[in-house]
Amino acid sequence: MQGTRDYNPKQMAIREKVFNTITRCFKRHGAETIDTPVFELKETLTGKYGEDSKLIYDLKDQGGELLSLRYDLTVPFARYLAMNKITNIKRYHIAKVYRRDNPAMTRGRYREFYQCDFDIAGQYDAMIPDAECLKIVHEILSELELGDFRIKVNDRRILDGMFAVCGVPDDKFRTICSTVDKLDKMPWEDVKKEMVNEKGLSEEAADQIGEYVSLQGGMDLAERLLLDPRMSQSKQACAGLSDIKLLFSYMQLFQLTDRVVFDLSLARGLDYYTGVIYEAVLTQAGVAPVSSDAPNRAEESVSVGSVAGGGRYDGLVGMFDPKGRKVPCVGVSIGIERIFSIMEQKAEASAEKVRTTEVQVLVASAQKNLLEERLRLVTELWNAGIKAEVMYKKNPKLLSQLQFCEETGIPLVAILGEQELKDGVVKLRVVATREEVDISQSDLIGEIKRRTSEA
Amino acid sequence: MQGTRDYNPKQMAIREKVFNTITRCFKRHGAETIDTPVFELKETLTGKYGEDSKLIYDLKDQGGELLSLRYDLTVPFARYLAMNKITNIKRYHIAKVYRRDNPAMTRGRYREFYQCDFDIAGQYDAMIPDAECLKIVHEILSELELGDFRIKVNDRRILDGMFAVCGVPDDKFRTICSTVDKLDKMPWEDVKKEMVNEKGLSEEAADQIGEYVSLQGGMDLAERLLLDPRMSQSKQACAGLSDIKLLFSYMQLFQLTDRVVFDLSLARGLDYYTGVIYEAVLTQAGVAPVSSDAPNRAEESVSVGSVAGGGRYDGLVGMFDPKGRKVPCVGVSIGIERIFSIMEQKAEASAEKVRTTEVQVLVASAQKNLLEERLRLVTELWNAGIKAEVMYKKNPKLLSQLQFCEETGIPLVAILGEQELKDGVVKLRVVATREEVDISQSDLIGEIKRRTSEA
Repeated sequence: MQGTRDYNPKQMAIREKVFNTITRCFKRHGAETIDTPVFELKETLTGKYGEDSKLIYDLKDQGGELLSLRYDLTVPFARYLAMNKITNIKRYHIAKVYRRDNPAMTRGRYREFYQCDFDIAGQYDAMIPDAECLKIVHEILSELELGDFRIKVNDRRILDGMFAVCGVPDDKFRTICSTVDKLDKMPWEDVKKEMVNEKGLSEEAADQIGEYVSLQGGMDLAERLLLDPRMSQSKQACAGLSDIKLLFSYMQLFQLTDRVVFDLSLARGLDYYTGVIYEAVLTQAGVAPVSSDAPNRAEESVSVGSVAGGGRYDGLVGMFDPKGRKVPCVGVSIGIERIFSIMEQKAEASAEKVRTTEVQVLVASAQKNLLEERLRLVTELWNAGIKAEVMYKKNPKLLSQLQFCEETGIPLVAILGEQELKDGVVKLRVVATREEVDISQSDLIGEIKRRTSEA
Repeated sequence: MQGTRDYNPKQMAIREKVFNTITRCFKRHGAETIDTPVFELKETLTGKYGEDSKLIYDLKDQGGELLSLRYDLTVPFARYLAMNKITNIKRYHIAKVYRRDNPAMTRGRYREFYQCDFDIAGQYDAMIPDAECLKIVHEILSELELGDFRIKVNDRRILDGMFAVCGVPDDKFRTICSTVDKLDKMPWEDVKKEMVNEKGLSEEAADQIGEYVSLQGGMDLAERLLLDPRMSQSKQACAGLSDIKLLFSYMQLFQLTDRVVFDLSLARGLDYYTGVIYEAVLTQAGVAPVSSDAPNRAEESVSVGSVAGGGRYDGLVGMFDPKGRKVPCVGVSIGIERIFSIMEQKAEASAEKVRTTEVQVLVASAQKNLLEERLRLVTELWNAGIKAEVMYKKNPKLLSQLQFCEETGIPLVAILGEQELKDGVVKLRVVATREEVDISQSDLIGEIKRRTSEA
């Protein structure tokens, strides 16, 4: 099917490793996990994704409720909080979401893909949970060893304030914002053209926006903008800038400012963000393919490497509460498919073979008519918790049993023969070195555990 | 939404434990894992599920391919094998499937539910992989401590042979088989009525079937039936009976015959089975609710407790291969939702609180204005791999920090105060015993690891 894929055992082994790293990090930060159905009532998803709503998969009306496949994990999370009247939770959710997008599989974009979300819901002191979300991005990207990365931060209130002081009419904020969002895919000249020609913005306003969105910096930039004669006229912008300052002070304590940049061009498309927003991009050369239509733009290669994003959405839960009660939320989503692609490329480039099972030992026989003895021994091993296999043949050849181990990476072979059975021993063979030792049946389990303890 | 549910953190903690047990068992037996998309081409699912095909969820035709949500994991597995020309694999797959059934949530039946499948594909010597599937059921049900259970086995060829010798016309085999399948929900009299009145079988044929389907036993029953004057006239039945004998001999070596019964009433609904079939049921009193319309039938309470099932399906992969090349398969599906329900009931009945996080320590403060110090310390702990939390408040009260630990089961609190900071120590408090010790900052990480090593 278009835009979907099966994962084979090798891909699954890589995927499991990545999920384990991410889950470990989420748990290190005290997150619980929840799960929601793969489909939601259609009305739950309506009006949450702006122009992208056309990408939602609907189920056929077979009688009963109208259902759609989930588009992300954030809206179901908000629906879950409102429905259960939960006002405080730190949760992660790793699951598939669905978008009827034009698949670009070489760049790791699919119609069915995983999201790994971590969110903190609750009324807390400003910027502490927000900073923890960024700490999590930093930890995960560092631990996965994907190469250099940068985390861009901005604030929706700064964008809105900027639009206001640059003379954008109120009703054009969202549409101009989604044009700014394209800055990571198009040069400023094209973005400006879209603002002026398609969205009817004045050239003067566009130029003023152009000046701001080229700015990048740290806490110092936030301080400078708080003194900017135009920007400081917007209360909203000032609130956002003060929070960016506070965020940087917490990020310093969390030891992650080396990777973070305050970037006024960061917009992010989704409607529901209300405060801080952020996005992590891989910056290492060679990781991100540069598209042929913009070969000279550094930002292009950066943007393709986007691997995490998120922000604050204080209004979303209220949309699902009958009384409109708000639950402030902040969260981050790890772009796991992009990370899988990179890890797969790495695995292919490396000489090391990816094992797809964890089997410690194959129970083999050197002679014919030993099936019963093999089944008896493998039962003993299974009952003792050893990962073991036996070939499903009455009389397999020893050579083919040894080859099976080589192919699948099984490190040990327990070989039964008539002499061994008479002596009450098993010949334990180390596949890599071909070393063989006779071991009494009673010592076998301990010996296998000892020799495969690091596996 | 009807027939679906959110899993809350407590349910997820139980679910994770069950999944871990099952995955560990699958891996112990050397299985790889794969994943397939949640939807398949509609045509892939068509004609695979007999009368139940009406329960398939279709996606809306939004242009492009016609898609349906997967109904089980077996058909996608067969499609995967044919598509990738795989002739040998031992794989497990844990994922959700979808059925537009009448939900019976109290009995653990949902429209969205998990399946945990283990299958062995490949041309092997008879009954060895089949016996391993049953060994896996035995291991999982034993390890989960769900109480007594029984595994019923039968063979489609025995059923078909029995139908033939009892005078059922060829074209009525499948429909009579699905009536026999209802024996775990209805008494024989009603099943017979359906055969005669609805399906037009002769009363004589029905009575002959009735004699056979009341039989239960072990290897001895298979031997007896091989000598049965009527049954032994069917080549098919004899092939099935010989394989049941062989299966029992392997199950003896695998040490599981104490739980297994050869039961001629076991039919299983799905069209694709071609050989051995099996089903595991919980037999412990109190576990399975007895329905009010048949209060006196022991089989009723047994059937509601069905927790695993499977069998051999040698023709399914060939249906997806352009040249019809067959790949023999045998597998088992663990009925995980039923198991969740039981584990949840157990958890509720038990005094022990289910923890939903694994946090080892809360970084707390005894005085005001120590947020920076708390953030610095929790960063050190995270960087050292400790699972740690900090409350998202500038000045939380010590009491509320301690209460948070009690509520969530965090065993340790690292308390910072001005005196401690001056002395370069942290006060480590054990929540359960209220014991407090001063520990130097440099020893803290080791001490936390030591005290929570069993967690």
